[in-house]
Amino acid sequence: MPYYIGDVIKDAGRLIARTPEKFEETGVRVRLNTAVEEIDTAKGEVRVAGGERFPFDSLVLATGAVATLPQIPGVDTEGVFILKNLRDAITIKEYLSENRCRKVLVVGAGFIAMEICEALRTRNIDAEVIYRGELPVKRWDPDFSRLVLDELNAHGVSFVSGTTPLAVEKGAQYRLRLLTDGGPYEGDMILMALGVRPNTVLAEAVGIALGKSGAIGVDFSQQTSREGFYAAGDCCEVYHRVMQEWVNMPLGDIANKQGRVAGSSIGGAPRTFPGVVGAQSFKVFNLELALTGISERDAEKRGFDPLSVIIWGTPSARSLNIDKKRLGLKLIADRKSGRLIGAQAIGEAGAVSRVNVLSLGLWNGMTVDEIGYIDLAYSPPFSGAWDTIHIAAQKLAKAF
Amino acid sequence: MPYYIGDVIKDAGRLIARTPEKFEETGVRVRLNTAVEEIDTAKGEVRVAGGERFPFDSLVLATGAVATLPQIPGVDTEGVFILKNLRDAITIKEYLSENRCRKVLVVGAGFIAMEICEALRTRNIDAEVIYRGELPVKRWDPDFSRLVLDELNAHGVSFVSGTTPLAVEKGAQYRLRLLTDGGPYEGDMILMALGVRPNTVLAEAVGIALGKSGAIGVDFSQQTSREGFYAAGDCCEVYHRVMQEWVNMPLGDIANKQGRVAGSSIGGAPRTFPGVVGAQSFKVFNLELALTGISERDAEKRGFDPLSVIIWGTPSARSLNIDKKRLGLKLIADRKSGRLIGAQAIGEAGAVSRVNVLSLGLWNGMTVDEIGYIDLAYSPPFSGAWDTIHIAAQKLAKAF
Repeated sequence: MPYYIGDVIKDAGRLIARTPEKFEETGVRVRLNTAVEEIDTAKGEVRVAGGERFPFDSLVLATGAVATLPQIPGVDTEGVFILKNLRDAITIKEYLSENRCRKVLVVGAGFIAMEICEALRTRNIDAEVIYRGELPVKRWDPDFSRLVLDELNAHGVSFVSGTTPLAVEKGAQYRLRLLTDGGPYEGDMILMALGVRPNTVLAEAVGIALGKSGAIGVDFSQQTSREGFYAAGDCCEVYHRVMQEWVNMPLGDIANKQGRVAGSSIGGAPRTFPGVVGAQSFKVFNLELALTGISERDAEKRGFDPLSVIIWGTPSARSLNIDKKRLGLKLIADRKSGRLIGAQAIGEAGAVSRVNVLSLGLWNGMTVDEIGYIDLAYSPPFSGAWDTIHIAAQKLAKAF
Repeated sequence: MPYYIGDVIKDAGRLIARTPEKFEETGVRVRLNTAVEEIDTAKGEVRVAGGERFPFDSLVLATGAVATLPQIPGVDTEGVFILKNLRDAITIKEYLSENRCRKVLVVGAGFIAMEICEALRTRNIDAEVIYRGELPVKRWDPDFSRLVLDELNAHGVSFVSGTTPLAVEKGAQYRLRLLTDGGPYEGDMILMALGVRPNTVLAEAVGIALGKSGAIGVDFSQQTSREGFYAAGDCCEVYHRVMQEWVNMPLGDIANKQGRVAGSSIGGAPRTFPGVVGAQSFKVFNLELALTGISERDAEKRGFDPLSVIIWGTPSARSLNIDKKRLGLKLIADRKSGRLIGAQAIGEAGAVSRVNVLSLGLWNGMTVDEIGYIDLAYSPPFSGAWDTIHIAAQKLAKAF
């Protein structure tokens, strides 16, 4: 697999295409569509396709992640796509238009799959999710996943559970047919949304150590096992403050932070990256979902003794909640320490904001008892005098 | 001034009127419209109007606050109102209807005044704010207050600054005339929204000590200077974690928490109230405003060396912010400790959620440098990969 420098930037359209020039102004050179084929550690040079060499003092590996493709016959058929970068998105849009696609099969049910379904329905294209598990977005509690399933159905997305793809072939009613262990499904396009794995090929080629997660191991300055070689983003690990472990968490905001930390350190203003608590969110149709920290299963694996509660509250004071919006909040604590270790939220509004507050609770190692009395900016349009956070934390504190 | 037990509850309409019965079910008796005239500390009894006596082991003073009325001639004229409780609100609504009010003068420009203006305009009644200062909501930065002024004007509220009321008399064009040092203003109703002071009369009568703020002094269990006598809510002080001082902060969510702490302690499950960081919020027309911590002026008074920054960001990723919503965020840090000590936000969306996150930063004594790298639940509908919080904190950290 070739490595492109600035590959995505090239295809990002008018706005992002200006980026190379903006970099030039600050003295940074950007090479687009330039595959790095070898890192010559002895000379301190990278060799790109065509043979040109670029010397370096420090090197940042920002090789990102590789989308997972199932190893099934026909997976390379035209019309089977992954969605990993902007270029993929543009290619998909073009394919949808040029082929007048009426229906797309989406394989996988994580948050990228959910976002794809919404985008397709917005264009009035049918979407059918094929998933080997039972419910969508399995990182969330099944009670919340069931609401996501209802939301998909309410917007015309069909959801096929317990079904594993076996092969892709030409279709009859639509362009393509996906054979599965539950029979054939057809669509004009098949989108594989099965997650990503860190792209570590270049790093491994020069003997840089991988962490337990399989991603490039880094320290708090983003330096790898080899001095002067840094890594940032989806290709490397990040310290998880709740798990107290290095993990791979391919998310854009983390990549941004790691890049800045690596750059600062290389540029002579060393700083350390304080790690993450696992906060993430997405929107699907009229629902927002967010979570932070760890699940009960992850907690048990790591020696915590998890205790949890789910509360159904409202995003504003009940008196002002005239459209009867609901806000579901699940809190997970560790019985031994009394600390919050995870939170999940779902609702038409207010889920992300609650999870962000609780992320700072996790960041600072707060107990659920303390969280039951935190000071929030109360006003009826934005919460009850007791916010859903307080109510959930107090209920959970009582369960100890 | 008489003291009513359950006074507000009585007038709160159908829903809240059920509360006494709900209490009875749990063995709590509620006396409505019952003025406490004396606390007999020797016998451990309260005497109410009419002479009936109620014995107690512990007593909670939840006497609230008294709305400030200017000492001017005619202030007791019919049509001059304060808005402190639900009964006031109902009386005001009735008066507005019965007298077919076309225009209301609102004296004061704090957040209650702002909320009144919005409520009046919703009923298509003209509102004119009379304020002795320059800009509305002076707790916020003048840059933000100016946006509030624009928002008032855009919704047909006129704002008269630098003007102090001198007297109330009968009007010509409208029912009432407010004489001021800037000339006469007329309206069918005058609403005095000049803030509140703690109601400490009963407490003082039995020798309970007041704090420096003039409110009832309490400890972290809500107990006053007299054993067995507790206080909760607007009548008493609360510990401010950023100021590291006891202050009076008459806000509903704080009152709720203090009441629960007092009740727990009296009921044999003692707990302590961890204090507040000064979080508050309100909505006026299409703007939400929130703040937490302390202002630069308060900081200087308390020996901090404040440093601040204002950032104009967006409530979602720029690519999704098609209606060009703006989010203003001001952060205030202490140069000596590097810690965040205050935050203010304004916008059509996202102000409260940012301030709530930052309130937890204040609660835990975080530095702005650390806040620049906190883990939030990023997704484009809810923020950029770098949230406005990160951008502001990093900019402020650079200013040290």
